[in-house]
Amino acid sequence: MNLQEYLKRRQRLIDRALQLWISGKDEFPPQLHEAMHYSLFAGGKRLRPILALAAAETVGGRAADVLPLACSLELIHTYSLIHDDLPSMDNDDLRRGKPTCHRIFGEGLAVLAGDALLTEAFHIMTRPDLMKGVSPSRRLRAISHVARAAGSLGMIGGQVMDIVSQGEKVDSPLLEYIHSHKTGALIAASVYAGAIVGGGSPRECQALKMYGEKLGLAFQVIDDLLDVQGEVSKLGKAVHKNGIKGKATYPAVFGIAESRRQAEVLVEQALACLKSFNERANPLREIAKFILKRTN
Amino acid sequence: MNLQEYLKRRQRLIDRALQLWISGKDEFPPQLHEAMHYSLFAGGKRLRPILALAAAETVGGRAADVLPLACSLELIHTYSLIHDDLPSMDNDDLRRGKPTCHRIFGEGLAVLAGDALLTEAFHIMTRPDLMKGVSPSRRLRAISHVARAAGSLGMIGGQVMDIVSQGEKVDSPLLEYIHSHKTGALIAASVYAGAIVGGGSPRECQALKMYGEKLGLAFQVIDDLLDVQGEVSKLGKAVHKNGIKGKATYPAVFGIAESRRQAEVLVEQALACLKSFNERANPLREIAKFILKRTN
Repeated sequence: MNLQEYLKRRQRLIDRALQLWISGKDEFPPQLHEAMHYSLFAGGKRLRPILALAAAETVGGRAADVLPLACSLELIHTYSLIHDDLPSMDNDDLRRGKPTCHRIFGEGLAVLAGDALLTEAFHIMTRPDLMKGVSPSRRLRAISHVARAAGSLGMIGGQVMDIVSQGEKVDSPLLEYIHSHKTGALIAASVYAGAIVGGGSPRECQALKMYGEKLGLAFQVIDDLLDVQGEVSKLGKAVHKNGIKGKATYPAVFGIAESRRQAEVLVEQALACLKSFNERANPLREIAKFILKRTN
Repeated sequence: MNLQEYLKRRQRLIDRALQLWISGKDEFPPQLHEAMHYSLFAGGKRLRPILALAAAETVGGRAADVLPLACSLELIHTYSLIHDDLPSMDNDDLRRGKPTCHRIFGEGLAVLAGDALLTEAFHIMTRPDLMKGVSPSRRLRAISHVARAAGSLGMIGGQVMDIVSQGEKVDSPLLEYIHSHKTGALIAASVYAGAIVGGGSPRECQALKMYGEKLGLAFQVIDDLLDVQGEVSKLGKAVHKNGIKGKATYPAVFGIAESRRQAEVLVEQALACLKSFNERANPLREIAKFILKRTN
């Protein structure tokens, strides 16, 4: 399969669905909806929704049934970026090559646009006119898992420890906590919830969840490496900012070569989780391999 | 019925359930969970959960089935207060007689504690071990309605217009938009979602939704009047702050006497929505009458 073409097709599918399902740019209040759309359509890779779709298809589900859930994962991801960039947190001016939400709309509106995207995620997942092909109890299970992964014991927990440990010496267990929660939890939940909604058996869902956990951690290790080695023009955000801010990163704790090796091991482990699946899991396999090659 | 005793019993029930179901204060990361608990147990009146329970009982539902949903409404309300109080919004130092969340834990952690409470609300509403007596499709419908009411077309929309119209002349349609969205939407959703989960018929749910809308608006008009006429010691927050901040309020647009009259009319309209219900609606009736008498 041609992964780049697959990813592009999926990005277009997801972008069209997002445009269709989230509150329009012309809804009242205009400032709020402009801010939401500004961050949501700022060139995200749509990794989480693509993973949810690919996981559903791996277990024989239909993309159309999973699309609302997939979109919701991108809304949650986008809200987390808006809030992470705030002056009271990472204080970033640039995201995906563009000024951050609060630089354009002000801090108050950026907080509220993030809140609204998070809330809208749960609205789309529960709308009575969507996901009609999925049983209500499977839907509830998937939403519950996403909520847990995005909450205080998941993504938000990781972000808190990332902030409070800035400038402090971080040991490897805490580093793994931060990375597996801040980035890994939502990536793993995307795969797992996609598999649930796609109709996967408990055993299939469990294997895919483990794939997602390995993949999510590998993704963040590579992110750290790109921050050290990457170029502003490719990343669309400042480089070396982790070092400047005294952030806990894999290269800082393990060095560049060992971090790279760990990412490779994680991707191997992720691929091993897919052993029992047939060729329908090929997109998940290709995505895992691609993680190691990405430059932005 | 003795309303004060009823309210106290319900507050205790809700507080116990909140303690049981939200992530414990000793969960990791400690700072985050402390901040969440600090704001959640700062002496809230639990109006929204009490309304959800009362609405469910009005249509013959059981309190135990509705309790998780009821708790979630308090989590959403609490998150909205934490974010509203932030320096980039209302910049308030005092809430319910105590320092606001960001004054104690810092701005970044206050944003994240709010995010976590909002996310936890949707987790509790979808947990597979709770609300087992309610059909999954009714649950989804109720959650969907709560999400819509709390989102960009509901509560957050109202908060945005409240902020951006500060210091500007506000006409009465915009004033009603702000009040009915910022406060009214979640109060109305509490009643409506409680009625759905309680097993109400479409007609019953619709009547209770209208009750909730009138009640929510009356509640906010009285809030404005208390800000003008109240005492710090009773309110537990600064008074006259709306005037100082140039906020849109009913007394500022209509005067004190006319605002009072409008609140009374709204309560009458709310009571009229309950006409077709029997004595099981008495708590809702008493709460509506009490709104006019409250001093904090």
